[in-house]
Amino acid sequence: MQSPPSHPRVVVVGAGFGGMQTAQSLAKSGAEVLLIDRNNYNTFVPLLYQVAAAQIEPESIAYPLRTVLRHANRTQFMLAEVQRVDFDHQLVETDNAVVSYDYLVLSTGSQTQFMGVPGAADYGFPLRTLDQAVTLRNHILHRFEQAVREPDPMRRRQLLTFVIVGGGPTGVEMAGTLVELKKSLRCDYPGLNWQDMQIVLVQSGDNLLTNLPARLGRYTARKLSKLGVTLYFNVRVGQVTDSTVELSDGCSLAAGTVIWAAGLEAAMPEAVVAPQTARKQKLKVRSTLQLTDYANVYAIGDVAAGESNGIPLTGVAPEALQQGVAVAHNIRRQLLGKSPKPFSYLNKGRLAIIGGYGGVGKIGPILLTGFLPWLMWLSVHLVYLPGFRNRLMVLLNWLHGYGRGDRAIRLILSPQPAVKRPVLTTNRPLTVES
Amino acid sequence: MQSPPSHPRVVVVGAGFGGMQTAQSLAKSGAEVLLIDRNNYNTFVPLLYQVAAAQIEPESIAYPLRTVLRHANRTQFMLAEVQRVDFDHQLVETDNAVVSYDYLVLSTGSQTQFMGVPGAADYGFPLRTLDQAVTLRNHILHRFEQAVREPDPMRRRQLLTFVIVGGGPTGVEMAGTLVELKKSLRCDYPGLNWQDMQIVLVQSGDNLLTNLPARLGRYTARKLSKLGVTLYFNVRVGQVTDSTVELSDGCSLAAGTVIWAAGLEAAMPEAVVAPQTARKQKLKVRSTLQLTDYANVYAIGDVAAGESNGIPLTGVAPEALQQGVAVAHNIRRQLLGKSPKPFSYLNKGRLAIIGGYGGVGKIGPILLTGFLPWLMWLSVHLVYLPGFRNRLMVLLNWLHGYGRGDRAIRLILSPQPAVKRPVLTTNRPLTVES
Repeated sequence: MQSPPSHPRVVVVGAGFGGMQTAQSLAKSGAEVLLIDRNNYNTFVPLLYQVAAAQIEPESIAYPLRTVLRHANRTQFMLAEVQRVDFDHQLVETDNAVVSYDYLVLSTGSQTQFMGVPGAADYGFPLRTLDQAVTLRNHILHRFEQAVREPDPMRRRQLLTFVIVGGGPTGVEMAGTLVELKKSLRCDYPGLNWQDMQIVLVQSGDNLLTNLPARLGRYTARKLSKLGVTLYFNVRVGQVTDSTVELSDGCSLAAGTVIWAAGLEAAMPEAVVAPQTARKQKLKVRSTLQLTDYANVYAIGDVAAGESNGIPLTGVAPEALQQGVAVAHNIRRQLLGKSPKPFSYLNKGRLAIIGGYGGVGKIGPILLTGFLPWLMWLSVHLVYLPGFRNRLMVLLNWLHGYGRGDRAIRLILSPQPAVKRPVLTTNRPLTVES
Repeated sequence: MQSPPSHPRVVVVGAGFGGMQTAQSLAKSGAEVLLIDRNNYNTFVPLLYQVAAAQIEPESIAYPLRTVLRHANRTQFMLAEVQRVDFDHQLVETDNAVVSYDYLVLSTGSQTQFMGVPGAADYGFPLRTLDQAVTLRNHILHRFEQAVREPDPMRRRQLLTFVIVGGGPTGVEMAGTLVELKKSLRCDYPGLNWQDMQIVLVQSGDNLLTNLPARLGRYTARKLSKLGVTLYFNVRVGQVTDSTVELSDGCSLAAGTVIWAAGLEAAMPEAVVAPQTARKQKLKVRSTLQLTDYANVYAIGDVAAGESNGIPLTGVAPEALQQGVAVAHNIRRQLLGKSPKPFSYLNKGRLAIIGGYGGVGKIGPILLTGFLPWLMWLSVHLVYLPGFRNRLMVLLNWLHGYGRGDRAIRLILSPQPAVKRPVLTTNRPLTVES
């Protein structure tokens, strides 16, 4: 290791849960901190599905990064896209500058993995970024507008069929919120036959929410069934086209919307010398969260194959947050000439929201189902949402939405993405009257 | 005129102030009403400039049209782009249907007029739609991010120079809100020299807000000067390039942002037989708001050259709202075999907001300047904003913004438009350190 200069520079790449926490925890460490992200805001990913379902404004789950860092000493933000990392020369190359570092924290998160399924990347809607959430919202609402003027019943049913691929938290949340959306749109489209709206969830395994105890997954499946969601288990998607989802069992579903919530891989920027990776391209790290090959480079969150006491982490926000604190602590130790300490995750519990006022959770040994974990999920996420103003806005939207069964943000705000997507109905005149 | 069928059909094209009011006022008229718009929401245009200046969320000034019409009998909404109108066959051709009408109300508003200035349409930012407001917001915030990493002082000053073309209400509002934005961004960019930020307003005449008494325009100019806005009077823009504004007096302003608020023309859809128009392509209408050539076609708002007691209207929202009520009334009269009545505008007063807690107004014979008309402007617009939820959201943003001098929505949410725009800084590495 080099001897650090008077103000050693720590570069943090990626301002998700882990990166933002690292930058904040490094304030007053004496180091010069540079946080780099391609957006000028932090996205509160757990509530993305609510943006996609027209429940809350995109602005209310985005928090300006410069505001986060306002009171942090010697901490700067740079809006840039990282293009390459040179571990040997300790350089981060971005689209507008080359930055040197003494310590580097990689917290670049994950990206959607389409697993080679033909058409999935072209016709499936991922849900990992705020732009994607708004695009999906516009598309979903556009489908209702198309359906209401579609005279052919088969095509109408197709327009209103939503297929969700993946039975993890995102897939379950989307299925549940689409059920709620259906209820709140009834008044808006009195002409529609609501039996035409189909919500289908396709899961490759035999249970949902596989990171939680199997009993909770089975409860979730029963709850979604009761809400009217059609569940397909032990089936994989073989192909996605502009109007169908082809399943591995030979079935073909006519669908107007395919939401791809089925898997992700590490979003690691290119490196001059590629570091060691584990499954899903995740970076191999030591128990101290340092890269196996570089003692001055840390990797946290979804980009890293992190462990806690030998057990692999599952990729949830609290893990990344605790890793951010730990990395800041370890860098401080290194600055003082001490050796970094192993990371240990304190699991305070897990919650998942389903919809229809139902959720599941595991707090210590206790399993929870129904209304209580639903309310706990909302409360916890409201508390963790950055910014008082955002919290208030989201709370008001929830009171309005869950209280009155209504959604205020039914706006197709940027029609372009919906138009670029394949449109099922042609532009032929549907009702020529004279 | 044809004898109307049992349920005569009124088609309203355009859901701005006038069109939405017409559709609402026609409820319970016995007619079948179809409201057509290219968006599924009504845009509250007076607050667009606040969206562009990161003061309020775009969602809070958009109101879903289907919600407006929920309780209106026999009233339907269609999301469509009108492509052609055939007055003789009484048909409206849209991109997804051809619709016949017994009565037609044209309320398609206005569009930005670049008046043949080279480069204005390519490099000037108009501010007429919600998409344009969001695009401008992203661009403005992006300029600060570019400026903070720009080492060359000349280029930094250029990036932070905002030229507003036009001294009407939009130009004045934008100048004022940019001054306020400057204050609220100080904490975010401690490294910037704020004297580099220049706000310039270019006006072709010798006063601002020419639709109001000259004294109010002069007050507005003094107020903006005091706030630090540079005002150019009696100067026209000859050309806009990706980095300059060329003025008619030979001056050239280096600018990173050009906001085009200088003129508009009627946004009339194509017609099989073109109707008679007045200046700015506005449709000629009788005193009853009927087209001169067609007794069953009405035109209101910015698309029409409307008058009240022989005096031309000025194109403000209350005029369109009152015209909407009048048109609904006249169509009811025609349905009953009576003849339409002339429209008469009741002017309750005019207000304009400047910024820095200042505004101007004229209520009857009384001229107002300063804090009172500023507060009245905000109050009136809060009351007229459709939707309780939107009102609450905007109020909270104002309390936060005007109270604390802060803006919460400093988000570059869709980076694409900013990237497509000419970028002044090149992608060369600015700070190579090693």
